[in-house]
Amino acid sequence: MDRRRLDALLAAVAAGEVAPAEAAERLAELPYADLGMARLDLHRELRGGQPETVFAEGKTADDLVAIGRRLWQAHGRLLVTRLDAAKAEVLVGEIPQARYHRRARLLTAGEQPEAHLGPVAVLAAGTSDLPVAEEAALCASWFGVRVERLFDVGVAGLHRLLGELATVRRARAVIVVAGMDGALPSVVAGLVATPVVAVPTSVGYGASFGGVAALLTMLNACAGGVSVVNIDNGFGAAVVTSRMLVAATPREENS
Amino acid sequence: MDRRRLDALLAAVAAGEVAPAEAAERLAELPYADLGMARLDLHRELRGGQPETVFAEGKTADDLVAIGRRLWQAHGRLLVTRLDAAKAEVLVGEIPQARYHRRARLLTAGEQPEAHLGPVAVLAAGTSDLPVAEEAALCASWFGVRVERLFDVGVAGLHRLLGELATVRRARAVIVVAGMDGALPSVVAGLVATPVVAVPTSVGYGASFGGVAALLTMLNACAGGVSVVNIDNGFGAAVVTSRMLVAATPREENS
Amino acid sequence: MDRRRLDALLAAVAAGEVAPAEAAERLAELPYADLGMARLDLHRELRGGQPETVFAEGKTADDLVAIGRRLWQAHGRLLVTRLDAAKAEVLVGEIPQARYHRRARLLTAGEQPEAHLGPVAVLAAGTSDLPVAEEAALCASWFGVRVERLFDVGVAGLHRLLGELATVRRARAVIVVAGMDGALPSVVAGLVATPVVAVPTSVGYGASFGGVAALLTMLNACAGGVSVVNIDNGFGAAVVTSRMLVAATPREENS
Amino acid sequence: MDRRRLDALLAAVAAGEVAPAEAAERLAELPYADLGMARLDLHRELRGGQPETVFAEGKTADDLVAIGRRLWQAHGRLLVTRLDAAKAEVLVGEIPQARYHRRARLLTAGEQPEAHLGPVAVLAAGTSDLPVAEEAALCASWFGVRVERLFDVGVAGLHRLLGELATVRRARAVIVVAGMDGALPSVVAGLVATPVVAVPTSVGYGASFGGVAALLTMLNACAGGVSVVNIDNGFGAAVVTSRMLVAATPREENS
Amino acid sequence: MDRRRLDALLAAVAAGEVAPAEAAERLAELPYADLGMARLDLHRELRGGQPETVFAEGKTADDLVAIGRRLWQAHGRLLVTRLDAAKAEVLVGEIPQARYHRRARLLTAGEQPEAHLGPVAVLAAGTSDLPVAEEAALCASWFGVRVERLFDVGVAGLHRLLGELATVRRARAVIVVAGMDGALPSVVAGLVATPVVAVPTSVGYGASFGGVAALLTMLNACAGGVSVVNIDNGFGAAVVTSRMLVAATPREENS
Amino acid sequence: MDRRRLDALLAAVAAGEVAPAEAAERLAELPYADLGMARLDLHRELRGGQPETVFAEGKTADDLVAIGRRLWQAHGRLLVTRLDAAKAEVLVGEIPQARYHRRARLLTAGEQPEAHLGPVAVLAAGTSDLPVAEEAALCASWFGVRVERLFDVGVAGLHRLLGELATVRRARAVIVVAGMDGALPSVVAGLVATPVVAVPTSVGYGASFGGVAALLTMLNACAGGVSVVNIDNGFGAAVVTSRMLVAATPREENS
Amino acid sequence: MDRRRLDALLAAVAAGEVAPAEAAERLAELPYADLGMARLDLHRELRGGQPETVFAEGKTADDLVAIGRRLWQAHGRLLVTRLDAAKAEVLVGEIPQARYHRRARLLTAGEQPEAHLGPVAVLAAGTSDLPVAEEAALCASWFGVRVERLFDVGVAGLHRLLGELATVRRARAVIVVAGMDGALPSVVAGLVATPVVAVPTSVGYGASFGGVAALLTMLNACAGGVSVVNIDNGFGAAVVTSRMLVAATPREENS
Amino acid sequence: MDRRRLDALLAAVAAGEVAPAEAAERLAELPYADLGMARLDLHRELRGGQPETVFAEGKTADDLVAIGRRLWQAHGRLLVTRLDAAKAEVLVGEIPQARYHRRARLLTAGEQPEAHLGPVAVLAAGTSDLPVAEEAALCASWFGVRVERLFDVGVAGLHRLLGELATVRRARAVIVVAGMDGALPSVVAGLVATPVVAVPTSVGYGASFGGVAALLTMLNACAGGVSVVNIDNGFGAAVVTSRMLVAATPREENS
Repeated sequence: MDRRRLDALLAAVAAGEVAPAEAAERLAELPYADLGMARLDLHRELRGGQPETVFAEGKTADDLVAIGRRLWQAHGRLLVTRLDAAKAEVLVGEIPQARYHRRARLLTAGEQPEAHLGPVAVLAAGTSDLPVAEEAALCASWFGVRVERLFDVGVAGLHRLLGELATVRRARAVIVVAGMDGALPSVVAGLVATPVVAVPTSVGYGASFGGVAALLTMLNACAGGVSVVNIDNGFGAAVVTSRMLVAATPREENS
Repeated sequence: MDRRRLDALLAAVAAGEVAPAEAAERLAELPYADLGMARLDLHRELRGGQPETVFAEGKTADDLVAIGRRLWQAHGRLLVTRLDAAKAEVLVGEIPQARYHRRARLLTAGEQPEAHLGPVAVLAAGTSDLPVAEEAALCASWFGVRVERLFDVGVAGLHRLLGELATVRRARAVIVVAGMDGALPSVVAGLVATPVVAVPTSVGYGASFGGVAALLTMLNACAGGVSVVNIDNGFGAAVVTSRMLVAATPREENS
Repeated sequence: MDRRRLDALLAAVAAGEVAPAEAAERLAELPYADLGMARLDLHRELRGGQPETVFAEGKTADDLVAIGRRLWQAHGRLLVTRLDAAKAEVLVGEIPQARYHRRARLLTAGEQPEAHLGPVAVLAAGTSDLPVAEEAALCASWFGVRVERLFDVGVAGLHRLLGELATVRRARAVIVVAGMDGALPSVVAGLVATPVVAVPTSVGYGASFGGVAALLTMLNACAGGVSVVNIDNGFGAAVVTSRMLVAATPREENS
Repeated sequence: MDRRRLDALLAAVAAGEVAPAEAAERLAELPYADLGMARLDLHRELRGGQPETVFAEGKTADDLVAIGRRLWQAHGRLLVTRLDAAKAEVLVGEIPQARYHRRARLLTAGEQPEAHLGPVAVLAAGTSDLPVAEEAALCASWFGVRVERLFDVGVAGLHRLLGELATVRRARAVIVVAGMDGALPSVVAGLVATPVVAVPTSVGYGASFGGVAALLTMLNACAGGVSVVNIDNGFGAAVVTSRMLVAATPREENS
Repeated sequence: MDRRRLDALLAAVAAGEVAPAEAAERLAELPYADLGMARLDLHRELRGGQPETVFAEGKTADDLVAIGRRLWQAHGRLLVTRLDAAKAEVLVGEIPQARYHRRARLLTAGEQPEAHLGPVAVLAAGTSDLPVAEEAALCASWFGVRVERLFDVGVAGLHRLLGELATVRRARAVIVVAGMDGALPSVVAGLVATPVVAVPTSVGYGASFGGVAALLTMLNACAGGVSVVNIDNGFGAAVVTSRMLVAATPREENS
Repeated sequence: MDRRRLDALLAAVAAGEVAPAEAAERLAELPYADLGMARLDLHRELRGGQPETVFAEGKTADDLVAIGRRLWQAHGRLLVTRLDAAKAEVLVGEIPQARYHRRARLLTAGEQPEAHLGPVAVLAAGTSDLPVAEEAALCASWFGVRVERLFDVGVAGLHRLLGELATVRRARAVIVVAGMDGALPSVVAGLVATPVVAVPTSVGYGASFGGVAALLTMLNACAGGVSVVNIDNGFGAAVVTSRMLVAATPREENS
Repeated sequence: MDRRRLDALLAAVAAGEVAPAEAAERLAELPYADLGMARLDLHRELRGGQPETVFAEGKTADDLVAIGRRLWQAHGRLLVTRLDAAKAEVLVGEIPQARYHRRARLLTAGEQPEAHLGPVAVLAAGTSDLPVAEEAALCASWFGVRVERLFDVGVAGLHRLLGELATVRRARAVIVVAGMDGALPSVVAGLVATPVVAVPTSVGYGASFGGVAALLTMLNACAGGVSVVNIDNGFGAAVVTSRMLVAATPREENS
Repeated sequence: MDRRRLDALLAAVAAGEVAPAEAAERLAELPYADLGMARLDLHRELRGGQPETVFAEGKTADDLVAIGRRLWQAHGRLLVTRLDAAKAEVLVGEIPQARYHRRARLLTAGEQPEAHLGPVAVLAAGTSDLPVAEEAALCASWFGVRVERLFDVGVAGLHRLLGELATVRRARAVIVVAGMDGALPSVVAGLVATPVVAVPTSVGYGASFGGVAALLTMLNACAGGVSVVNIDNGFGAAVVTSRMLVAATPREENS
């Protein structure tokens, strides 16, 4: 809940300007827009540092248009994740400022913020992991993070990683995206002193079980400093990382 | 690998003080002590920010004494995790400066550093989650982090959490420890702007599957900003969190 | 078995009106219509409170027409669940009174009963959970329950739920539909004194495992009063809830 | 949260008797007793219909004594579940009014309420399921429910169930406890019109996987009206059932 | 291996008619036709009671034609299982005597044997289980078994089963096909003295996990006399059952 | 239900000797002895061919004595499975005619019937599988089956099996007990024409998952004629097999 | 890393020809070609005995063309695995020397080396396993191994395998490809003295779980000498086997 | 089967020295010693290169003594794996030449062969993996392989491995033992040209699931040349590796 609004409301109650019963009603009512099938959390930016993002899977194109338009009006910025090309076309038709990033399956609308946080290194173990790595990199940029991309640096050819070690070490946090054996985050975390956010991908076959093998590898990383997000969740890694960086800045800026 | 030693060694080769063949040998040889059954990574502090920690499970008491002594000699500090009481007694007999923390199953020896990082809030959903939460809190303190403990604040009685919200929001990162349904990190992440490191515990029975239920809940957290470590891995959460905080300080201090 | 028919039959045997051997035959024979590929349980309404419902998956359109017609003739009411649009078109062509509810994948024919039970609150955590939530809400209405819909009230924005708490508390039972982390039922059950019927959905990806993550969360709810039905089983939640309400009414009405 | 206290507090703010800032603090502060390792939810009775119950697993005997005493003082009633005999002895030593139920692994202290709700039938499929069935039956009684026990009525000898059908049908709800194949709830739900709360047990071996087989059977019950709680969770079934019955009584009594 | 041929060959060796080295070669060589991608086991009928059956999944239409023709030539009978409609059309084009059974996804060519074994009752719990039940029934008939079909007799309406009990009891073995909760075999096995061969089907959704729930139920059947075959394996149940019946006939006929 | 009693009762009703209401009561009441914690199915022999067997796990010694005595009195025969040595000692103290079979963890009391059925071959893949194989062999003998034991004939040394092929082929059914890879039933079923009842055991480690690997192998047996019972369920295999043999005998004897 | 280049580089540093800082940069830089979305490991042949192979799944046709061309230029040989027909057509359009092997889903370009290693026997249990067996056989040939194909020799007709035993025993290693029960490697390993590389396939249905059943069987093989690769990974088996054979040749050839 | 004996026997039949029927009997009879509960495969050395090894789990001390003595008499060598200390004491009491290796849980009796094969490098990721690594190393030595042990070289401190790279590369095969994330084999296989036999261990906790995480990592190794044995199966890795080396030697020695 938005603390400042709460304080103001209680002050108004204290001043007799608002009746207690009415205050109780308003406490719940304010911070979202009710579209029937969705309640848009218009104050999430205040609370969590970022405007609400739209997860497109399982929503109809009509739902997405209604939600996207309302958020666009409220914030002048819009981020939609896991959006297939067909629905993207509809949305771009309705919100001309929107741009679709096909490999990452993302839609963005509005100006990209200046890259005032970071840098963060985004590593991908193989070329097949690129859609997830791009999702992470684009979202992090969208949150104001400076991103260094290092793709196809998996442990099967360790020298490819070692050759980029200086770049990896310069970063304030590392996002490591890997499918199959998911071994890269363990190796990276043993080489740097920064936090490693590991993203398992569903790349692989057979006993990779759609990313479960990589997920387990990462949860059991024998090197310290690794934490894990859901399979294929590049967006989630970007949120975690940008929160880390925001939390590290002086309090005045982000309370 | 330790960059400064590498640079010095290459400079010595360039100066003709060290032969190339010898340099190749020394590149591998230096940074650990070989005890036969263990190779102690005496330079991990330089590389990863913390001296090597000992994971006690699966090691004999004899192994632990040999390893513990060597690390104690090298660093004047020692941290042993997942140590049962019987082996702890042996170790304390050999290293009198050591202290055993029974609930957290930790042994520490040496001075606790000043709390120059943080603060970090450590939340536990229930009383049964305390061993893991204490492991996280003690390890974070050991790494120089100021810790605020908030225990038994699970979602079954949401007001217990809401009553501590100010403390949670003041923290620069939040460690959330929960078993059973593992729902607490989702709720916390929706209320703060800082990163949430979620630790599932094996508390529960039946379909909790030794912590798998809580682990999955956390990986699927619908609120952004949650990353996850292994089940019961309070130590891991402390490493991740302290790395976040170190990464946030000016580069000079931790490169 | 239908107790009154059983009593009547035994009385007829006692009166010599029916031979024992014939009675044994008739005991089995009466209560269903045998269509070859299906035996319609025409007496389920007497036994279980509701006419037999048709589960459409795995049945051919021809099977569905034969079954649907027979039940429509017998009861003047018909409910078909998990029906895709193509088969629905065939059925509506054969039973003109039928109406297809696309989002919920339901077909109904006949008059909706008056809402003499409830109210019941149907909560959905996210917009993507709507198909299941609508299935629950429409079926409950079909069983005579007054329904309050509260959609997109997931724990990522807790204030959306807290703002509707009065409505939730007024209900005599709460159906909570959630995918991903499935955390909402735990939170709701901690806030109300009524039974919570939790419905996990297959919404999510990666480690949600098609709804397993949400299912496990709900089975391990740390708050009391939660019971769970199968993944995506909005219909099942409606049956459970309407049985609760019927059981609570005076015995004369439903024995 | 306790609505009446909230209303009173807001009224006091409106009357100028309480400052807004102080109100914000008190909103969180009141409703629990902080023991350090536990926060006792002393108002849960108001919110959820029952005083807080203690789950003993994973808590030390010392923790249990501290928690048990405080709840006993606050309510004059105490219920501890999943308590082994050794810890029970300690607790009974400290709270002489307490009584230990060995088969059900429960401890109760205080007067049993009059059986003003129900009746509820508690069915167990086999003799080995008795510990869980007794937990359900004793807890339901503790919540004021009149209980009918019908044990060893599994589907391997269907006539044992059919012989008790009248009793089962008289009940307002049925708790069905079964391990191994977990088939009993499906059969019962096809024979009655009341809600069936199914409790899988860990009775079985091999491919019963500690109760998973029975759990899955129950979640997939082909008969309507079945909802499921966690494996071996007799207590949970009792809470669900008593909430159903309370919800069915006139509002004045349980708001 | 075919004992009579072995005996004949060894006798020929003893008689000097066949050289030992040649005998060793022929021992391996004879009993199959090598098509390159397949080795047709032309003697399986002698060894296992039935000619080799073709499992169509994963085979190309070309492979199926080559295999089907060769078996048809050798035996004048042919049975192909799990055959989709497109490949069936190709096969029927090549082997005009063949007939495709669409619901059961079977192709047969040649004369059906007289029903000299049985009777066997084939029960299906629901209409959606029919494809598998038909596969079992048609294959059993193909093996010379007299079959009684009893479909849609699941436990949700127990009277449908009880009404057919006489038929079920007359059978010498019972095949029970069920998806979802898979509870029917447990109930049937408690009511008859004959062996029950249980076939789980993939009918269901969510926590049925493609038939795993039903499979586990059946493996854990609390009533004796149940054995289980693979999910959707109606063919397998028919083979098991026909072997039972053959084994029960006087030795002369089937040694 | 016992058909002859049912016929007699209905005849009595028809004759006016029994009132219909009383008949309804007696239909359920007769066929078991209610011990409170158990309902002994004293008529199971008529229905299922064998007296009720006692599964000892999860039952207290007191329960077992009460149940064992009652069955012993009713039938003069008693079979208890999965009984540990400590409880066995108590039971033998109470029922002096009882004999404990330690390796198989079985207790029997009463005369072994003449071996009028079979023969059945019981194969064990390895020495570690003997407890389960002995359970199967002893139970089959107890049901009147002539048993041939062939132990340690696993596929790692195929000649051990081939050397016993004549014995295996003489049997009317084969029980195959195997842990680890569970490959033996596939091989056996390819060599005989009789039904193969496969029993996976929990022998193995690591990825054997307590018998799951062997269970899956058996369910997927590529040779026809294999059906499967639960892991370690030697008793179940004996029941299935004896039912097969009984079903094969002329109807008069076992209806 | 390429040892000879490392030695040369260090010698150059020692000779003052290369500055240390530059050396550090070049250590990482050399051994791959950076295409942006991929880093081609052009020195893998030196390190691992084979040029880099391209895994096509998850890569776009554009990516594959760019990667394929660059490798073709560098080595004059190219191997692409798991390539569907559509993408293969694009690649063949760009690299006219390429040839697509449809059943094995492989593309090769360049001359096949002389078969200087082996022989290796490649066994397939059934015709449906051929795609994977062909992938193994073609890749092994590509690596210079002489291959003997023995297809459709599964354990359901053991004589088919026994008839080819001489060929199997002549091989220096055996690759065994099997789906369903995966029993063939256990049997083969009991009959030969050479290593057996087992490849589970996803052939099967129901409880084969996409190859998991066969995988577990193989990991639990009761005969020694079996090691396992991923499900459907014929390519991996070929690499393992060719490495075995290379390692066995005199050191000079492959250091 | 022993080919030379088979040839001799067939020759004897051809010569009229042995009757065909008798030959059929002897074909099966010869190659093992039947102890009742075990059939010792005394000819396995001829067939598989090594005498039969005893797997101790699940065997009683009495069984082990009988089996151990018989093998000791037949071969003058004995290897028992997975033997706990208590049973080892009994065996050593009966076979004084035996020696127990506590960490590896192995018993050996007889002379160790000269190390004529190899060398093989045995790597262990951590100190806790030593029991399995020692089992592999001791068994390999027992089979005549020269072994290089490199322990505690996990990827968390990559320099420990890189420092031993020369030793690893000199080996003709590498056994890599690792628990937790199991990432070491992927990294090693990318650095050498020899086959890597990976052994997952059950070291770890939580989501390591008793070694499943490491097993999956290894099956999905992104570097070629890795094959995998069962969890904790150091013995199996030694058999696979020694077979590789034997297969590589000239045919005369091991046919």
